[in-house]
Amino acid sequence: MIAEIIAIGSELTSGQKLDTNSQWLSLQLADLGIPVHFHTTVADDLDANIAVLQAATQRADLVLLTGGLGPTLDDLTRQALAGMAGVDLVLDKASLSFIENFFAGRGRDMPERNRIQAMFPAGSEPLPNPVGTAPGIWMEVPGGVSGKVCRVAAFPGVPSEMHRMFTEQVRPRLPGGARIIRRARINCFGVGESRAEGLLGDLTARGRDPEIGITAHEATITMRIIAHGSTEQECREKISTADRAVRERLGHYVFGVEDEELEHVLIRALRDRRETLSTAESGSGGRIAHCLTGVDDFEDAYLGGLVVPTDRAREAMLGPLPANVAEEVSEPMAHWMATACRERFGTDYALAVTQYPFMEDGQSMRDAPSAFLALATQSETIVRPISLAGNPAILRSRVAKSAMDLLRLHLRKLTPSS
Amino acid sequence: MIAEIIAIGSELTSGQKLDTNSQWLSLQLADLGIPVHFHTTVADDLDANIAVLQAATQRADLVLLTGGLGPTLDDLTRQALAGMAGVDLVLDKASLSFIENFFAGRGRDMPERNRIQAMFPAGSEPLPNPVGTAPGIWMEVPGGVSGKVCRVAAFPGVPSEMHRMFTEQVRPRLPGGARIIRRARINCFGVGESRAEGLLGDLTARGRDPEIGITAHEATITMRIIAHGSTEQECREKISTADRAVRERLGHYVFGVEDEELEHVLIRALRDRRETLSTAESGSGGRIAHCLTGVDDFEDAYLGGLVVPTDRAREAMLGPLPANVAEEVSEPMAHWMATACRERFGTDYALAVTQYPFMEDGQSMRDAPSAFLALATQSETIVRPISLAGNPAILRSRVAKSAMDLLRLHLRKLTPSS
Repeated sequence: MIAEIIAIGSELTSGQKLDTNSQWLSLQLADLGIPVHFHTTVADDLDANIAVLQAATQRADLVLLTGGLGPTLDDLTRQALAGMAGVDLVLDKASLSFIENFFAGRGRDMPERNRIQAMFPAGSEPLPNPVGTAPGIWMEVPGGVSGKVCRVAAFPGVPSEMHRMFTEQVRPRLPGGARIIRRARINCFGVGESRAEGLLGDLTARGRDPEIGITAHEATITMRIIAHGSTEQECREKISTADRAVRERLGHYVFGVEDEELEHVLIRALRDRRETLSTAESGSGGRIAHCLTGVDDFEDAYLGGLVVPTDRAREAMLGPLPANVAEEVSEPMAHWMATACRERFGTDYALAVTQYPFMEDGQSMRDAPSAFLALATQSETIVRPISLAGNPAILRSRVAKSAMDLLRLHLRKLTPSS
Repeated sequence: MIAEIIAIGSELTSGQKLDTNSQWLSLQLADLGIPVHFHTTVADDLDANIAVLQAATQRADLVLLTGGLGPTLDDLTRQALAGMAGVDLVLDKASLSFIENFFAGRGRDMPERNRIQAMFPAGSEPLPNPVGTAPGIWMEVPGGVSGKVCRVAAFPGVPSEMHRMFTEQVRPRLPGGARIIRRARINCFGVGESRAEGLLGDLTARGRDPEIGITAHEATITMRIIAHGSTEQECREKISTADRAVRERLGHYVFGVEDEELEHVLIRALRDRRETLSTAESGSGGRIAHCLTGVDDFEDAYLGGLVVPTDRAREAMLGPLPANVAEEVSEPMAHWMATACRERFGTDYALAVTQYPFMEDGQSMRDAPSAFLALATQSETIVRPISLAGNPAILRSRVAKSAMDLLRLHLRKLTPSS
């Protein structure tokens, strides 16, 4: 079975809008093992639409269309499908009532022009739209690569409507579409993408079920698990087996799941222990504070922070520099910043980031020297160098995450049961 | 003249990669007034490629292709163009030397498989690629809407290579392509998109030259000026006239041009005046500090800041709360935060943002009450309410910009010449 995806709209061919629907549908079909050979995007022109549909229904066995189902004059998908199949448009009473009720529910009469949305090519089947006024269309026409039949589904161009209608109504009609797909994500920090791949070994091999892929976003490494099964239960079990295997191999690098970032995990751990944190940032310019204050109910755990990128600010907020702190970018500076910050805020922990080292003109990030991170606790202050080599666009984010990870790992040591 | 854009690659039809080249090329052609009626994306399959090219060269007068010009076996654009035109591939010696030199410049021999990149359909013309090993291809074949000629240009899929080759080599060959296009951007803050449109009036009318469009990004409103002309000088004059007209109508809302944001303008103004700033943020969680520390050489102007989202942090860093400050979200709180922050850091100015008001469960951002901003100067402390109604996703950014804008406007009053 070969598929083609058609996106309809002059706003797409003119470049005013970027088509992302075709990619989304391609990924859905890839999940089912259906290869997509063509994407076609066509302007709002009836003859061009008919010609494109005729070509598609000959060279593909499945054609998915998006767009052109609205009530206005430039919405031509219904007419194009009828023209391609050589049939008339006929009124579907159930769809008409649905649309009238949709407007009635908003206290309005249905505008006359919306009536066209209840018209369907003779022999086709409406695909109800639970969230909008435009029903989709399902039809089977002579054609396809074998010359027998081509199946056609038309969706509205609004992504949320299209996603839901594909998943609920069209996917189950496709070969393999009755099978269930479930996804899960496991997030890691402190390990690179290729090292993670090495540790996972055969788990990421192509064609395995469940499939495990690795992606990176601002130094957070995410394992994406995709499980196929005939029941929800089967998928859940596959995911849980894969989850155990990933955690076994990646150990303490794993910090969370789904949308969790380090700041969520850290705030939760601190709240559970009824402990508090403050921060003193030079080079990272408040990035840690910004992350932590974005978490719901952070106030019991994160009391506040300093952005102290200058000597004057450090001395104003943390007190006079001790005699042993000479260099702006140094271990003693990180040590003092964290210790003094913890004392000033009266928190259980403090994290500090020194200024970033001065870069020579033309020096690449590859040769970049290190800044220093520090974690002050009741009993000690730990200092770690952090290399600034790597993509400058994600540098602040990576440094902030590295500092938070220092505390996360420290807390894990103290609570080995977690 | 009607155009079609073809993107080649199984990574596109499978959905693994999103095609953005077609949109970019459509926008370039729109600038020239050439309508695009079709985008086609096709997998790496020779027969499918030839069929797509045959259809395109019949229904369009100009066909732009991207992708499939690499050295590997799945790169088939050269072969497809030759197949479509019914001609052989022939070696272009100049292209071969260029590719050999490209590798020699990197101290390597040209791999044998790169030789294919110097092969071109007989009768076509190479389009040199100044930044990669894949030259493009220009050819004219029988076809087009009128049945006379269709012009075809093939580019590598790497966006930076494609952009440069289109602009330098193909654009000048197109009708209107010899005309020059220059763009400029003027950035405003403190005015909404529709109010800006109202103030600009006829300046934004469609079809005007230069064209002026309005876009919004995180509460910064940008006027985009596009001037067409036959010389650089003509474009410059048109832009400068439009720039004057925009500034006349939008007055003090205008703060910068091109990529300038409020933080750049503020740091520059403070450096020019040899004055300094500090910040105390509750609700905005360090966003102002994060913006200001992202500007080059900010250190002389922005000394540092506090992220004080809790009473404990405010008292630890700013001293005991005065008797008149009872409410966390109040004018007196903002007043005290800014005044005390300015004193603690010893700066000329301080900006403060109070906590955001507590939202009831289910209360929409539309009914949101206000937080307070304050600016402390040597002679006074100014407090302003800021409504939290609006898109929550950009709330922190808007609040941070509003605080910076308070100081920008204050500085302008003191230096009316600027």
